[in-house]
Formats: sequence, structure tokens, C-alpha cells
Amino acid sequence: MSLPATRAPRKPRLAITMGDPAGVGPEIIIKAFAAEELASFCCPVVYGDLGVLARAVRLLGHELELVEVSEQASFEPEPPGAEGAATSAIRVVPRSRLRLEEVPFGALSEAGSRAMADYVRGAALRVRDGGADAVVTCPITKEGLKLAGEPFPGHTEMLATLCGGARVVMMLAGERLKVALVTIHVALRRALELLDAPLIEETIRTTDRFFRTYLACAAPRIAVAGLNPHAGEGGLFGDEEARLIAPAIAACRSSGIDVLGPFPPDTVFHRAYHGQFDVVVAMTHDHGLIPLKLVHFDDGVNVTMGLPILRTSVDHGTAYDIAGTGKAKPTSLLAALRMAARMASLRAAEPEPRDARDPGH
Amino acid sequence: MSLPATRAPRKPRLAITMGDPAGVGPEIIIKAFAAEELASFCCPVVYGDLGVLARAVRLLGHELELVEVSEQASFEPEPPGAEGAATSAIRVVPRSRLRLEEVPFGALSEAGSRAMADYVRGAALRVRDGGADAVVTCPITKEGLKLAGEPFPGHTEMLATLCGGARVVMMLAGERLKVALVTIHVALRRALELLDAPLIEETIRTTDRFFRTYLACAAPRIAVAGLNPHAGEGGLFGDEEARLIAPAIAACRSSGIDVLGPFPPDTVFHRAYHGQFDVVVAMTHDHGLIPLKLVHFDDGVNVTMGLPILRTSVDHGTAYDIAGTGKAKPTSLLAALRMAARMASLRAAEPEPRDARDPGH
Repeated sequence: MSLPATRAPRKPRLAITMGDPAGVGPEIIIKAFAAEELASFCCPVVYGDLGVLARAVRLLGHELELVEVSEQASFEPEPPGAEGAATSAIRVVPRSRLRLEEVPFGALSEAGSRAMADYVRGAALRVRDGGADAVVTCPITKEGLKLAGEPFPGHTEMLATLCGGARVVMMLAGERLKVALVTIHVALRRALELLDAPLIEETIRTTDRFFRTYLACAAPRIAVAGLNPHAGEGGLFGDEEARLIAPAIAACRSSGIDVLGPFPPDTVFHRAYHGQFDVVVAMTHDHGLIPLKLVHFDDGVNVTMGLPILRTSVDHGTAYDIAGTGKAKPTSLLAALRMAARMASLRAAEPEPRDARDPGH
Repeated sequence: MSLPATRAPRKPRLAITMGDPAGVGPEIIIKAFAAEELASFCCPVVYGDLGVLARAVRLLGHELELVEVSEQASFEPEPPGAEGAATSAIRVVPRSRLRLEEVPFGALSEAGSRAMADYVRGAALRVRDGGADAVVTCPITKEGLKLAGEPFPGHTEMLATLCGGARVVMMLAGERLKVALVTIHVALRRALELLDAPLIEETIRTTDRFFRTYLACAAPRIAVAGLNPHAGEGGLFGDEEARLIAPAIAACRSSGIDVLGPFPPDTVFHRAYHGQFDVVVAMTHDHGLIPLKLVHFDDGVNVTMGLPILRTSVDHGTAYDIAGTGKAKPTSLLAALRMAARMASLRAAEPEPRDARDPGH
């Protein structure tokens, strides 16, 4: 968190990673550029592969121009000698030169996997070094990362390591509902073992800090969902609420965070959806994602909180089953781009620290 | 399930239990009668207390007449000598004569608790014996049942015992989404211990049978939600899907039930909401109730499947905090009445048994 907290330029510079060349990433990028004048709200550059993107352009039958740009020049307002094409052209930093037969649709490949990891590395370092305002990622596969020899199970861990080993929190966000997750990709049984008061407390603090930094919320209203039915019904249905969650909430409140709970899981999301809270902290992947995907199935955005850089992502996978068919929707990518642009624009100078306990509470 | 499977009369006879006299039950009953011409779709009778209901009438300022009826006469189309008042009057089987000072709003009392349990007993036996078509229950408290010396933790267990010890399944139902629960009011940790293949299989079978009997679904489309993130992601995030859920689904499919899954919990409810399935079987209370209450907060209905009688219930508690203020909404009660009437009307003659394995599958 020691980056210079300068305001983003008028139009946020977004580094879009193309994701797995064999997945739906290239298609949704082309569809997103075709669907909207992205340049109206951001300066987008794709970290990817010209040949693979050209395949998606042909597949979809759009009239979009791909322009190769260098890493250094990539966010220039007008690419040299292409004034008319400036906004409709897709500027690409070519981090790979794959042969198309190496990366057929829907098939895992070592070449494609290495390239996919490299787009993330290139874009993340660009943002880390101040050359762009946010990374917006298209889907990759866990299997691909492994095949590429990367020691990371996913984007989030890779970004955390590249940008300085931060402990991160996954948020899924839509216009009406936002959820932050204490545990994510583990068996439910394991999630119960992992839950502890410090982890819950850190999730709440990271959420509070992120909303103050990137969402212009001076005092985000955070609700914490319980783990058990009826939030434990006074201990009758489990003690995690009293033993772990309530103490974490109390610790956060004592340093001035506007956090309430633990609430019964089955009603708190309805309250948040209707505006009573800015975000709900959920103990498990599905307590958070079931409601989020019910109401934001197409336009949910994955936001990684706690990184020293700003990153949003589509809320879906590589969808190998429909890659190359042109069926994939760009809705989530468009939402991720808009959210990244908005957060980069709202980005505050480093917000007030809240580490000192406030003895008045 | 050995009751005579006669068709319900034109208008289903609904036995409404008043619930805890100190809770919102009496108010929502009065509001429901005031809001709609209930007689247009059912013959309603309240099992409750005339004095307590009169208090609610005064509180709400409605012009509703309360008419005492005997157990035997209660479903006669016109109460004797009251032709004009027949539809607007509320017919009450007075199972208690409480003094109002015994049952102040929002306070647990032994007299009120005993009465509350007795309404349920009276109404359930009436339906069991063929004198009514369904019970519709207003909220009671677990503490009250205990205070009244009842050995049951809740309505469901009490009804199961009164009507013959059936193993029951709780369904929460709205127009757009219906969820059946494998485990309910236990700690999440305990729910994981309770899950086993026979329990899951029985839940699916009970759900299938109920939809065929009461919802005129010849072949209900049942989806089963997994337990773990991404339904276990091929074993990476837990093995309950492969070990318990898939075998239960396979066993049910082999006897002809149209059941699919296990699906990732975070997408299956969205699919069901958009019409791909009639009902989702969820492993835990909150996997099912989080999405249900998000979209059917006010009009969700609790349905007990597997009982030999038909029973629906409001989807909320006694709400002691607002009892007596007139704030409680009758939405859920109205939905419970409409659903009970609809199910009673649709009730099939005993549906085809599905116990024999179909070797063709």
C-alpha cells in the first residue's frame, strides 16, 4: 500500500488480459469492444495475442481493427497515424505470437497456458509500476497455470505474489449486492476449520479499507452474515457466531468500522439488496455467491481487495464447452471494465488509517 | 399416506391456526381477512381465541365480525342466521378462552403457550380425520412449546407425530423458486455430519412424491445443489458430491425420478428461478433459504412435505418485537393460504408409486 496515491487521469487506463487463448476470453473481448464505445469511459489495452484475437474477430464477423502497440506507447490517446480508427481499434500489447493450431478452442495446451500466465504478469507489473490504473482479467484455468509451471492456483494468488505478497479478499460485486468472502475455494468442511476470529477480522478490515479507497465510501456499512442457521439461534445451532464472529466484529467496531452482525444468513442478503448495507461479509463461498449470482448472474464482477493494485475480473470461467461458438456473453467483462474504471476514478488518496483503537467506542 | 384420496370440494377447507397469542399471528389473520375476500378461493376457519382475535380487530380498527362456530359446523357454507355476513365474518373454532392480561404482546406465557399448541392439535386432527383439507399455521415459539410441556421442538415434529410419525421434508416455496432442505435447524458443522446418501435420497423421493400429489406435476424436474464450492470441483474441494449426493441421485433416477445434479450451489438457484427446474434440493438450511428469501422475502411459504396431511405455514416467526403494533404484514399468510388452497385443489388421487426400480434405466 505504499504506491503514490495520485488521482487517475481523466480516463482510467485499463490493462485487459486476454485469458486462456482456448477459452472464451478472446471472444468476449471482441464482443465487448463491438458492443460499446469503451473509449468513452476508459483507455483500454489488451495484453494478449494478435493472431488469437484476429481469429475471434473472424469468428464473430465484426469489423474491428487490431492495432499492435508497444508496452510504452500503449496508453497514448491516439495511436500514431490512425486518428479515425483511434476509438474503434483495439490496441494490443502482443505478449505472445501463438500459432492457432497450438491453441484450438476448448483444449488445454502448454503454449496457450504459458502465454495466458504471461498476459497476467505483464499487465500486473504494468499497473504495479504506475503505467496503468487497473488490471481487468479474462478467465484462465487452474490446470493451465499448473501446466505452465506457475506455482499459483489462480489469478488472485499470482497477483498477490507479483505485487508484494498481500493477503487478499475476494469480493463479488454487482450494482445492487456486493459480497466479501472469508473463505473461498476449499471444501465446506475445510472452510469450517479455517474460520477464526483473526481471519474474519482481517476480512472486515480489508473490506472497509477497500470501500474507503476505491468506492468513495467514507464509512462503508458492512454487514456480517453468520455461519449457522438463524446465526446460531443463541447457541442452539452452533457457537461460531459467539466464539469467532462476534469478537471479530467487536474488534473492528472498536476501531471505528461501521460493521454489524452476525446476522442470520437467510435474511441479511435481502437487507443488503434493498440498500441497508454496502456489502455483506460471508463466511463461505456459497453463502456469498448463491445470492450474488441469483441477482447478478450476468453482470457480477470479481474484485480482489487487499492487493496493492486495483484488479477486477469477469465472474465466469473459460467455458471450454462453448469457446469458439460465439455464444459467450460479454456482459460480465463489460461490468468488470466499468467497475474498474469507476473505482480507478474514485480512488482516494490513501484513506485515513484505522489501525489505532478508538477508546471512545 | 393411507387416507382416502378423494378430491377436495370446490373450495378447499382451510384450518388456520392462530399461533402464539402474544405474537403477530392474530394481527396477520385479521389483516389477511381484511385484505382479501378469502372466501373467493377457500373456506377458512380459525382455530384460536375469540378474545385475542377481537383485540387484534380493535388494534387494527377493521370492521370484521368474529363468529364462533363449533368444530362440526365450522365449514358449513353459511353460518346459521348470518347470510349477509357469511363471507366477511371470520369463523372461529374457539379452542381457548384466554384472559387478555394472561397474554400481553411480546411475552411468553404458559397459558398462551398451551393454547397455541392446542390450536395446532385441533386443526391437525381435523384435517387428519378428513374434516378439512389443509392446515395453515401461524407462528409459534420453540420456547412456548417447551413451556407448554410439549415434547416437540416445532410445528413440523408435532404434526409428524400427531399424524403418524412420518419423516418429513421442509420446503420453502414461492411462485418463482422452491427449495427442499435435506438438513434444517442444526449447526452447519452438525449438518455435515448428518448428511448421508439415504437421507438425501429420501428427501428427493419425498419431494418427487409431493409434487406429483399436490402440484399436478407428473414428472417434477428436481435439481440437487452440491454442498461444496463448484460442487466439489471434481473432488478438489470436497468429496460429498461423489460420495453421497451423486449415488442418491443415481438411485432416484433409476426409479424414474427426473432429478439432476449435483450442481454448483452458486448457479443452480438462478437456473431454477428462470424456469429450468421445479424445485432445488439443498443440503443445508442456508444454501436453500438464502436464495429463497432474497427473492420471496415477503411471500415465501413453508410447506411440510411427507406428512399424511397438507400443511403450509407462514415463513416468519412470532416477531415479538413488533407484536401489537400493527406493523406485521399478512403477505406470507396470504401466500400460505393461497398455496394450501391451490395444492388442496390440485391434489391427485394417490399418485403412481415409484418404489420399484425401473430396470430400463
